[in-house]
Amino acid sequence: MLGKIALEEAFALPRFHEKTKWWAGMFATDTEKHTAEINDVGPIRLDFAERHGVGLQILSYTAPGVQDIWDAKDAQALAVEINDYIAEKVKAHPDRFAAFATLSMHDPQEAAAELRRCVTQHGFLGALVNDTQRAGVDGDDMIFYDNEKWDVFWATCTELDVPLYLHPRNPTGTIYEKLWADRKWLIGPPLSFAHGVSLHVLGMVTNGVFDRHPKLQVILGHLGEHIPFDMWRINHWFEDRKKMLGLGETCKRTIREYFAENLWITTSGHFSTTTLHFCMAEVGADRILFSIDYPFETFEDACDWFDGAEMSNTDRLKIGRENAKKLFKLGDYKDSTA
Amino acid sequence: MLGKIALEEAFALPRFHEKTKWWAGMFATDTEKHTAEINDVGPIRLDFAERHGVGLQILSYTAPGVQDIWDAKDAQALAVEINDYIAEKVKAHPDRFAAFATLSMHDPQEAAAELRRCVTQHGFLGALVNDTQRAGVDGDDMIFYDNEKWDVFWATCTELDVPLYLHPRNPTGTIYEKLWADRKWLIGPPLSFAHGVSLHVLGMVTNGVFDRHPKLQVILGHLGEHIPFDMWRINHWFEDRKKMLGLGETCKRTIREYFAENLWITTSGHFSTTTLHFCMAEVGADRILFSIDYPFETFEDACDWFDGAEMSNTDRLKIGRENAKKLFKLGDYKDSTA
Amino acid sequence: MLGKIALEEAFALPRFHEKTKWWAGMFATDTEKHTAEINDVGPIRLDFAERHGVGLQILSYTAPGVQDIWDAKDAQALAVEINDYIAEKVKAHPDRFAAFATLSMHDPQEAAAELRRCVTQHGFLGALVNDTQRAGVDGDDMIFYDNEKWDVFWATCTELDVPLYLHPRNPTGTIYEKLWADRKWLIGPPLSFAHGVSLHVLGMVTNGVFDRHPKLQVILGHLGEHIPFDMWRINHWFEDRKKMLGLGETCKRTIREYFAENLWITTSGHFSTTTLHFCMAEVGADRILFSIDYPFETFEDACDWFDGAEMSNTDRLKIGRENAKKLFKLGDYKDSTA
Amino acid sequence: MLGKIALEEAFALPRFHEKTKWWAGMFATDTEKHTAEINDVGPIRLDFAERHGVGLQILSYTAPGVQDIWDAKDAQALAVEINDYIAEKVKAHPDRFAAFATLSMHDPQEAAAELRRCVTQHGFLGALVNDTQRAGVDGDDMIFYDNEKWDVFWATCTELDVPLYLHPRNPTGTIYEKLWADRKWLIGPPLSFAHGVSLHVLGMVTNGVFDRHPKLQVILGHLGEHIPFDMWRINHWFEDRKKMLGLGETCKRTIREYFAENLWITTSGHFSTTTLHFCMAEVGADRILFSIDYPFETFEDACDWFDGAEMSNTDRLKIGRENAKKLFKLGDYKDSTA
Repeated sequence: MLGKIALEEAFALPRFHEKTKWWAGMFATDTEKHTAEINDVGPIRLDFAERHGVGLQILSYTAPGVQDIWDAKDAQALAVEINDYIAEKVKAHPDRFAAFATLSMHDPQEAAAELRRCVTQHGFLGALVNDTQRAGVDGDDMIFYDNEKWDVFWATCTELDVPLYLHPRNPTGTIYEKLWADRKWLIGPPLSFAHGVSLHVLGMVTNGVFDRHPKLQVILGHLGEHIPFDMWRINHWFEDRKKMLGLGETCKRTIREYFAENLWITTSGHFSTTTLHFCMAEVGADRILFSIDYPFETFEDACDWFDGAEMSNTDRLKIGRENAKKLFKLGDYKDSTA
Repeated sequence: MLGKIALEEAFALPRFHEKTKWWAGMFATDTEKHTAEINDVGPIRLDFAERHGVGLQILSYTAPGVQDIWDAKDAQALAVEINDYIAEKVKAHPDRFAAFATLSMHDPQEAAAELRRCVTQHGFLGALVNDTQRAGVDGDDMIFYDNEKWDVFWATCTELDVPLYLHPRNPTGTIYEKLWADRKWLIGPPLSFAHGVSLHVLGMVTNGVFDRHPKLQVILGHLGEHIPFDMWRINHWFEDRKKMLGLGETCKRTIREYFAENLWITTSGHFSTTTLHFCMAEVGADRILFSIDYPFETFEDACDWFDGAEMSNTDRLKIGRENAKKLFKLGDYKDSTA
Repeated sequence: MLGKIALEEAFALPRFHEKTKWWAGMFATDTEKHTAEINDVGPIRLDFAERHGVGLQILSYTAPGVQDIWDAKDAQALAVEINDYIAEKVKAHPDRFAAFATLSMHDPQEAAAELRRCVTQHGFLGALVNDTQRAGVDGDDMIFYDNEKWDVFWATCTELDVPLYLHPRNPTGTIYEKLWADRKWLIGPPLSFAHGVSLHVLGMVTNGVFDRHPKLQVILGHLGEHIPFDMWRINHWFEDRKKMLGLGETCKRTIREYFAENLWITTSGHFSTTTLHFCMAEVGADRILFSIDYPFETFEDACDWFDGAEMSNTDRLKIGRENAKKLFKLGDYKDSTA
Repeated sequence: MLGKIALEEAFALPRFHEKTKWWAGMFATDTEKHTAEINDVGPIRLDFAERHGVGLQILSYTAPGVQDIWDAKDAQALAVEINDYIAEKVKAHPDRFAAFATLSMHDPQEAAAELRRCVTQHGFLGALVNDTQRAGVDGDDMIFYDNEKWDVFWATCTELDVPLYLHPRNPTGTIYEKLWADRKWLIGPPLSFAHGVSLHVLGMVTNGVFDRHPKLQVILGHLGEHIPFDMWRINHWFEDRKKMLGLGETCKRTIREYFAENLWITTSGHFSTTTLHFCMAEVGADRILFSIDYPFETFEDACDWFDGAEMSNTDRLKIGRENAKKLFKLGDYKDSTA
């Protein structure tokens, strides 16, 4: 399929070359190649896109990024630097690249203001945040955005009418020591990513964020970070708890309603047709978006899989492009390769 | 279907009546009824079984149980008391009840010895452990069984040829404070249970427990605590990491091989045909076992669902009874209701 | 779900009371009740609809109906009578009933003209035809509509912008004697219906009807009369035959394209969530429409199943109502029960 | 996967070279290549098997074969010739080739006797019959085997404890003229094959063949010739008709029971994981057998698909080999490539 839109596609700042390469050592076979790919916002990516039928790439700063910086000032400075950097890069290929804002999440007002700047001045399509914000003097605190303090931020998202992509980051501090240190192979895609994001987004659900901001749109990668698997089970317990025990005070709708009205899932890093079909049954094809997770995954793996996966033509178009056009109001997006 | 076998079925010690009732207040509408049901190992359960076609119930002590007791001596004493208590109860209805051993998991040798006593002297069918063992002076430590210290215990399981059911427990201590305190509605079935067990059992996988004990059999409830959803993704990352980065030193087989040779999943608390069909595709019907999760779930919900769920007759028999007969060597089990 | 739209719902002319009752003897336990239900276009249906959340019923004359009459004049006279009859009935409850035209299919021009009359004068939403038209002096001929003679008819459908529901009828004449007489239990829903319609509609596909009339919309009942099951296999052979052997001369698109652009399937008489999920994967939820097949099936069976079937809220709404609103341009349909 | 067993694999008699080549013109791009492949029972097939991990090929005479010969004597003579021919060929590679008997189906006693000869003297593993037998002076009659006249034949199958593969053949005579002549692209895999076999085997079900021969085993190709798609619908109507109308007199079990106890389906010519998963849910993995349909399909298409299709290791082994070993009592089959 030509003209696909992909939305979990990472870049890094070239000035962190050495750090990026060191980090790549934890998962990449060829750290030099990975570093070149993630630093490139030009020919490498454009060439892959051309060869694999990707029309538009919505770029975001790689994890953990700013969410790893527990000094609030440093975090904000880096976020601004990243946003201005990628805005320049995107301008050079406006038909091929778009961007999500990078945000320091130490302070809701500050995050909201930077999002507003990025959307109104740079034309960014929303924001991508890497789970909780590290904070505290030693970086062991975790700021969640599922409480009322963050209403000002979510209100800004809905006012600007842009979605937030809730991306994972690696566990740190006490949580790392308690749970992950002795089972390091589970950090990242195999398990910890889904743990982090599923907790955070279901915290938003149960703490009423989507009830206070009914138009808020949040995107989850990796086919929904495990949550669709337990749709029945979550619904079963939520409904009982609502009736009995007070959950209904903050969380007024069913889990299926939040998935129909506020949540989206992408195929990033999860190229399984069986799981996709399951998600089509539980979440519905209207809420699923193609994505790659480049350069942690390859264009080839993602696109060969998606283009050949068994599904109706209508759903392939919707998941591959049309749903994203609706979500991001890209009505005038006419991909030259489509 | 008559003669179903169910294997995540909880009981409590009647002497903890008040505590059980208080605990029930967190999830049950009728705490009196719940307490009566969980304390009963006789007429209430037998009547439900009769009405809903359950032949054999394998009983286990309710969570968090002994795994919540961080004093090692107290934990061991309680485990022994529970085992002797349920052994007596089971004797009264040997065609209707069987039991899993309750174990203090402070010390591998002690746990192994108590398991051996229960299997050889009481005829128990294995053990059920509620995730990590609380330990430390303030109960904030978590003992995992996925390291080499526990090889003696796992060796005893395989020597006795009995499986271990890895059941969840609630988060406690630092983990509770860091992750769950502010999103309490996610504790238990909606999320924390799957987080706990998926980490623990995949820790066993990656740390080589099943490679050192290739005959070990471990049972997971709730259709596999999210893991089947990510079978493709886990496999994809494990295989890459094995080739590149050393995971293969401890974990020599693929995730699909561990699911084919060492792991089982039950339907406890997850009565969704869509998810069951997905698991039949990813895990295979030969490794799925019917269960209820009584009295947290009802016989009626579980059995009406399972008896009416769309599947082949062969798979209904296998999931409902025949797989359990193989796993527990119940070859001579001839259910009078079947 | 309230406000469902159902579109394979049969009525009969009361003046055929005795014949209807005799026919009912072949499949109904209570022939009196069935006859009363199929003759009613008022309180019985409205009451069922009220109790089971059906907003709009699109009514059609029961099979084999006019397609069973091999005298062309008699067939046309009966079609006109039926259309005028149901037009009156529908007028009494315009918010609850709508109708498909009944057509004599002996002559394409005549069929086109009657369709035009029904749509423009009576406001009918399309036509429902019971497979091939019996014809010939002894009724042994079968008129198919998949050849160029029928282009004038299909052109009228697209000009009027209304769909045709291709409903089955029982086998007759030589075909009956050769294939079905000795295995009578397979006549109707168990097998012969799907044989008849799948042949007819795939004949339309391969003979180029949808290529000559790219806007033509055809509806199939019973989740697609087996065709979705073989989507891969049909596609595989069609594509090979196109390249090699000339199928591409008439049939220019892939089978998946016809299903995305020209065909619809309904749930009539096939209340299986497993099969529905399969069709959602192969055909897509945007092309599936709720239906009952009353009074051959009950409102209760159809609606209890559909309302409780596991799927996303979005797809339930689409399949239950929204897709039908798009297909039939019922934009202003505001169901009072919804 | 190595050591796969394939069981719908066709050969032809070399002396029909010209006819085979002419026939190939209807579906093959390279008729010379096809003719060479179907005439070979040696190096070509063995080489494909080696390259694609097929251990054992159960060979059968290509359709329509003997079922196309309406002279009873000619049919019997050809059947015997074919059986003696392939018996010789198989002897040369007993670890790689096995055979199904070819039978003239004009006379039940004669068919039974030839089956007995092939099984006892040649060691054949059962028989493969191409749907109905053409008969009558002009070949327009169709002999079905679903009536009591054929009990002697079915009794022989069960006495010898071998299955019958009910393979399709092309429509001929009146049926061809009435239904297929004007829509020739639907003849064969796209539609007519499934029509023929689904009618025949469901005729056996409703006419009581499996009730009179409860141990009879019948194999269907192409993932069951559409029948699994309508499992719910067939069951629904059969059960109603049994209670009400007399179907229960001949057909005492449910359609799901016949599929659990008497029927098998193969993957021949239907390499869709979506449909396979659906069949795993409706029929169960224990009754599904890998097959190719060579040389109408390629080893490459079938094996690349099956080896890479998403499923549990257990089911891949069962479908790929273990189920066939059970069905054909190949307990001592130790594939050298496995």
